[in-house]
Amino acid sequence: NIQAMVFGNMGPTSATGVAFTRNPSTGAKQLYGEFLVNAQGEDVVAGIRTPQPLTEAARKEAGETAPSLETLMPETFGELTRIFDLLERHYRDMQDIEFTVQEGTLWMLQTRAGKRTTAAAFRIAVELAEEGILSREEALMRIEPGALDQLLHPTIDPDAEKRIIATGLPASPGAAAGEIVFDSDEAEALKAQGRSIILVRIETSPEDIHGMHAAAGIVTARGGMTSHAAVVARGMGRPCVCGASALKIDMAAGTLMANGRTFRKGDLITIDGTAGEIIVGAVPMRQPELSGDFATIMSWADGVRRLGVRANADTPRDAEAALSFGAEGIGLCRTEHMFFEEDRILAMREMICATDEAGRRKALAKILPMQRADFKQLFEIMGERPVTIRLLDPPLHEFLPHEDREIAAVAQALGISPATLKARVTELHEFNPMLGFRGCRLAIRYPEITEMQARAIFEAAVAASKRTGKSVTPEVMIPLVAYRTEYDLLARVIRETARAVEAESGTKLSYLIGTMIELPRAALKAAEIATGEDGAEFFSFGTNDLTQTCIGLSRDDAAPILASYEEKAIFEVDPFVSIDRDGVGELVAIGTERGRKVNPDLKIGICGEHGGDPRSVAFCHETGLDYVSCSPFRVPVARLAAAQAAISSNAAARDKD
Amino acid sequence: NIQAMVFGNMGPTSATGVAFTRNPSTGAKQLYGEFLVNAQGEDVVAGIRTPQPLTEAARKEAGETAPSLETLMPETFGELTRIFDLLERHYRDMQDIEFTVQEGTLWMLQTRAGKRTTAAAFRIAVELAEEGILSREEALMRIEPGALDQLLHPTIDPDAEKRIIATGLPASPGAAAGEIVFDSDEAEALKAQGRSIILVRIETSPEDIHGMHAAAGIVTARGGMTSHAAVVARGMGRPCVCGASALKIDMAAGTLMANGRTFRKGDLITIDGTAGEIIVGAVPMRQPELSGDFATIMSWADGVRRLGVRANADTPRDAEAALSFGAEGIGLCRTEHMFFEEDRILAMREMICATDEAGRRKALAKILPMQRADFKQLFEIMGERPVTIRLLDPPLHEFLPHEDREIAAVAQALGISPATLKARVTELHEFNPMLGFRGCRLAIRYPEITEMQARAIFEAAVAASKRTGKSVTPEVMIPLVAYRTEYDLLARVIRETARAVEAESGTKLSYLIGTMIELPRAALKAAEIATGEDGAEFFSFGTNDLTQTCIGLSRDDAAPILASYEEKAIFEVDPFVSIDRDGVGELVAIGTERGRKVNPDLKIGICGEHGGDPRSVAFCHETGLDYVSCSPFRVPVARLAAAQAAISSNAAARDKD
Repeated sequence: NIQAMVFGNMGPTSATGVAFTRNPSTGAKQLYGEFLVNAQGEDVVAGIRTPQPLTEAARKEAGETAPSLETLMPETFGELTRIFDLLERHYRDMQDIEFTVQEGTLWMLQTRAGKRTTAAAFRIAVELAEEGILSREEALMRIEPGALDQLLHPTIDPDAEKRIIATGLPASPGAAAGEIVFDSDEAEALKAQGRSIILVRIETSPEDIHGMHAAAGIVTARGGMTSHAAVVARGMGRPCVCGASALKIDMAAGTLMANGRTFRKGDLITIDGTAGEIIVGAVPMRQPELSGDFATIMSWADGVRRLGVRANADTPRDAEAALSFGAEGIGLCRTEHMFFEEDRILAMREMICATDEAGRRKALAKILPMQRADFKQLFEIMGERPVTIRLLDPPLHEFLPHEDREIAAVAQALGISPATLKARVTELHEFNPMLGFRGCRLAIRYPEITEMQARAIFEAAVAASKRTGKSVTPEVMIPLVAYRTEYDLLARVIRETARAVEAESGTKLSYLIGTMIELPRAALKAAEIATGEDGAEFFSFGTNDLTQTCIGLSRDDAAPILASYEEKAIFEVDPFVSIDRDGVGELVAIGTERGRKVNPDLKIGICGEHGGDPRSVAFCHETGLDYVSCSPFRVPVARLAAAQAAISSNAAARDKD
Repeated sequence: NIQAMVFGNMGPTSATGVAFTRNPSTGAKQLYGEFLVNAQGEDVVAGIRTPQPLTEAARKEAGETAPSLETLMPETFGELTRIFDLLERHYRDMQDIEFTVQEGTLWMLQTRAGKRTTAAAFRIAVELAEEGILSREEALMRIEPGALDQLLHPTIDPDAEKRIIATGLPASPGAAAGEIVFDSDEAEALKAQGRSIILVRIETSPEDIHGMHAAAGIVTARGGMTSHAAVVARGMGRPCVCGASALKIDMAAGTLMANGRTFRKGDLITIDGTAGEIIVGAVPMRQPELSGDFATIMSWADGVRRLGVRANADTPRDAEAALSFGAEGIGLCRTEHMFFEEDRILAMREMICATDEAGRRKALAKILPMQRADFKQLFEIMGERPVTIRLLDPPLHEFLPHEDREIAAVAQALGISPATLKARVTELHEFNPMLGFRGCRLAIRYPEITEMQARAIFEAAVAASKRTGKSVTPEVMIPLVAYRTEYDLLARVIRETARAVEAESGTKLSYLIGTMIELPRAALKAAEIATGEDGAEFFSFGTNDLTQTCIGLSRDDAAPILASYEEKAIFEVDPFVSIDRDGVGELVAIGTERGRKVNPDLKIGICGEHGGDPRSVAFCHETGLDYVSCSPFRVPVARLAAAQAAISSNAAARDKD
């Protein structure tokens, strides 16, 4: 099969060019491309001669003096326009085309679907659908959900000049600029003064949560894509660069050194969490655009998808972000972040150090009004949408100080001896906290914690409902259940508290009790846990912990392992990013099937980071879950991925018929 | 239904008494009991009058002057003897009987199976079988396997006077006496001088292994039934009392205080690991008896059971103990204990701190001859019996020092700076070591470790075989596999090493490669892991880790959780003691079924402490495993439990027909 060659370099009536049928940067429906007279393709690529624009409009816009193809070869241009239209309709997508004109005759060399920015992808998909070239479903399939991150966060202006200080892992997408601050308390204080902060830490711990909340962006010198900083930052939607190991942080001196340059507290930097860059000064940025084509695609997606999409949100700010991104409820409200706030951590510590139930109840009584206020705000924001609240989950030692100096200070505040506090710290120390005294195990031992939390939830529901006039249905979620007995013991405390609040308030409460399914045993015993009138009314698969236990891999320690495993192709994909269908996925499928078998109405969702991963969302759709829950910024990703999953499985079902 | 009362207090021809048809302490076939003339039952119980022996023989033995029933009422005695025989034959067991004589007439009040010691249970079972009253199978069913512990360890003489210093948890059964020593190195040194040592520690860590090996018994002030000390002591068959919190140990002063008394290093104490007691001085003991009725029952058990019974043994001493208890092979040889020994831990540390493969290979070359010698000894002891060797498993940080002073000393020995060593310690630190960089993950990153270990195993097999003339078939076990790719990468290294050793030695090696199934994912993916010619040739369920991951419960941290869970009846039985049939058990069943489906010849066993638990052994039988492996001292328990499981399931099968 021999093809004759055409020549674009046979004089002034010959030319060669490349074109996109639409603008690949904005998606606008306009011919976009360039050409050279008397030239071959390689001349365009080589960049020796400056190509000329195809259209007069583009020539004018660029202030170009050399004529456009439209002017120079009007007939050829007209033919080209007709062919472009034909090709686009035939291939049903924006085309990237090469052509040559040999002595006035037009020859098409190549056509293929053109690469485009995410913004362009949205516009092209919407307009192709509106032109009737694509169905709405086809238009939805044209957008890569993972690429939405580009749209949902501020991004560095691509034309801006960047002086890079250091690079690290792109741990949480988006860009942010602010002053360097090394301490979380200080970050919070400066934020309160209205300043924009970049929190820079060697690594973060749960005690930095308030600082991370206050910061516009986060940088760590240590830790991987699944380190504390990375996970929390993604959850909060804060841009984050992790493991920037070139940074030498001197906390005492308040300096940051990298590549021989020293930066001080207060110096302005910009971070790009999408690229993993830390940059000198405040670099110009582009803000995200949630209306227009984006909104159109999202509304089409909502019309098609079967899966519900909720958000993981712990604070009113999270909840508002979740709503703005289209979340239909809160699938995971972690209550522990509330306990870390300054005004309540002391009461929490008092509770932990109390020597008897009376002492614990006294401390819990101080936390109750604060928790109630938290929940009331959340319920008011969320209205009638479901809000799933997970009871206290982390190991208690996370709330205690560990450095001697800090222990002394806290002991004084608690009115106990440093030795007593230290003894409690030692007593609570664990070799493997992930597999230790946490989740429902805390409440089995100290049921008064659940009682306080249930009371805060129900009293808040009554108050919010009174204020908004809307009915509130909290979903109370018991974490880390492995045995039906655990569930029963705590569900009883919750129901008794509900009855007490009903009697006190003269209101009939509406609520659900359910459980996280985050241990292999829970998935296997799903039927037992969900069976009967008093069984769990909903499941939420905590696939973060289920992945850790099923694969036996600690997320906090996985970074060096993941590196060698990806290098040796043991993982097709990081199992903390995209659900491990074969292993963890089978447990989810087993849990779903067994739970539904005893209770066909069982509400089943997934929380944890997989809820915002398109491949995992597809898995949840196929497995028949009711909803996914993910961090607010991932909600649009999940909505689109859920729509695509529904379209794919409908098509597969049609193919079968 | 009204029953007339009989009276034993109607004069000198009336009497009342209790009797055992055999001696409940020794099991000897002799009437054993006592009576009172002119008395009711309550008089015997009240202890106001001293009862008289039934038989002349017993009267003489006790030096009693009051006449026996045999002399006093010969006719009644004769009748009683006939009735006892009748009752025993009818109920087919030793009977505990109450009787009354009213004016010369004998009335039987009650008969029931009599309580007995373990030694008596063996003798009675054997003799009832030999008398034709029971079948051998029935005799086997009469012995509680859990009670064998009493027979297999030295026990405190029940008549000895005991001054108890403190009590703790009965963490590992048996009794031992020796000098108090607080330091593991010192324990080892004194043991080498032939002295008997009780190692007393606040708690133990992997660095104490050599001290625990050297000690006759172990005491800790902290830690539960599943603490490091408890688990290791049970594995070694060393008596151990854990969590004796009344002990105040002052390591610096070399003293031990409890209940106001102070003991010093070198003071003699006795510990009873069965009762959890720590006792002043050297208390008289009884030695275990492994012949006679015990041997008879064991041989009957071996004739009936289908399950193989192997032992977990890391050292020649363990292996010899295993053989003496009737183990048919080694089901788990943990190689890491070998690395902790003083002469090789330095080379291990050198390997860990090496900055490149060449450095690691240099250090591993020093370990190779020592490992080879270890394996050679094991193979020589075990002859043709199978020996399963698990490749290096624990996290590397367990081999490094953690205290500054120790770091300085080790750094000097390694010829590196303390800062470098400390940096490596920090780098290897993990939040959840149980779910971290360990097992096959080490070898995926550093395959040269597996290469060295495989070479040591195969060279030792060649040497041992040459020496003993017996063929040796090592089973090389890859730990913590979750993905088939992990298995393949390491199996390839092992096979290549085997081919190299074959070429060098001119010998054809016979060996198996297999894997621990100790993660839920491994159980779920069993078919994938075992499929094809290059798939795993055997599975060994590591139910310790499988329990930890399936239930999400760290064994090292479980003590306080287990306490509240047993109190609230959440666990029917501690899942680390007896396998959790519903959860962990389902994973074992899934793994077995899926593995056998692709390879019907797949050899499947269980290692870990469940292998010595009778209920778990029954589970393994029912699930169709090939063998169980347990600590040497539990081997007889497993043999008997396996026989009982076979008998029960045969009976169930017959009932079905």
